[in-house]
Amino acid sequence: MIQIVAVGKIKEKAMKQLIEEYSKRISAYSKLEIAEVDDEPNLNNMDETVKQIEGERIIKQIKKDSFVVLLDLKGKMMSSQELAEKISWINTYRSSNITFVIGGSLGVSQQVKERADFTLKMSDMTFPHNLARLIILEQIYRSYKILNHEPYHK
Amino acid sequence: MIQIVAVGKIKEKAMKQLIEEYSKRISAYSKLEIAEVDDEPNLNNMDETVKQIEGERIIKQIKKDSFVVLLDLKGKMMSSQELAEKISWINTYRSSNITFVIGGSLGVSQQVKERADFTLKMSDMTFPHNLARLIILEQIYRSYKILNHEPYHK
Repeated sequence: MIQIVAVGKIKEKAMKQLIEEYSKRISAYSKLEIAEVDDEPNLNNMDETVKQIEGERIIKQIKKDSFVVLLDLKGKMMSSQELAEKISWINTYRSSNITFVIGGSLGVSQQVKERADFTLKMSDMTFPHNLARLIILEQIYRSYKILNHEPYHK
Repeated sequence: MIQIVAVGKIKEKAMKQLIEEYSKRISAYSKLEIAEVDDEPNLNNMDETVKQIEGERIIKQIKKDSFVVLLDLKGKMMSSQELAEKISWINTYRSSNITFVIGGSLGVSQQVKERADFTLKMSDMTFPHNLARLIILEQIYRSYKILNHEPYHK
């Protein structure tokens, strides 16, 4: 199964609808679970504390045997084809559960980085968390289309 | 002004709403025009012909003095900060008009590539054209926030 663990709620109705649409499409290929954890207000510029708290909430959601893909600007960039092959490789050799982690606006704690089995960069550009969630869902859907040799428009 | 020239219509209502939302936000900083040109049906696998026809439609929309940024997987990748600086540089030294071109599913013709002053890669991943349009609009909005030293959540 695919699990998304993301910090912060999606507020915009239109964004919610698009995320639901891709979730529905993915569920034709895999079980999908989206776990939203609360973001922690950063009242006194306590960056490390915020990351720590959010990190614990993230870790709590991840299944013990899940292969964790952390989305981060410091990760490895991949083409859609390469991501598809990675997903297939993980499912074959490592775990049937893959968790994609989307951190908060400050990034993630050391603990989450250490839990990650792989770190993926989608772009050098910084995306807002809601857009990051939409993009990774679209790429997961695209991966299944690629792995199943099904046509999919660009 | 910022111009987006994109091949293909946005069909999903939710995607249209998000694109409108970012367009509205950008218009606080710059005039924005989105020119949608028709995609050409590829009935007989005539890839070159399709690209040629779509290319002519694209070129037709671009103002003579506009600085053209082509979005393409073969372009240069930039961070959001670098894109912001690029936009500022273009406006200062080259042209007050910037056109971002989003091609069709086959890519763009040689003619469009030659008209481009700069080619930008958003990611190694392939995005559907509607998502590409949303992402570049968000990045343009983000660029203005960066250039104006205004806070913007990630």
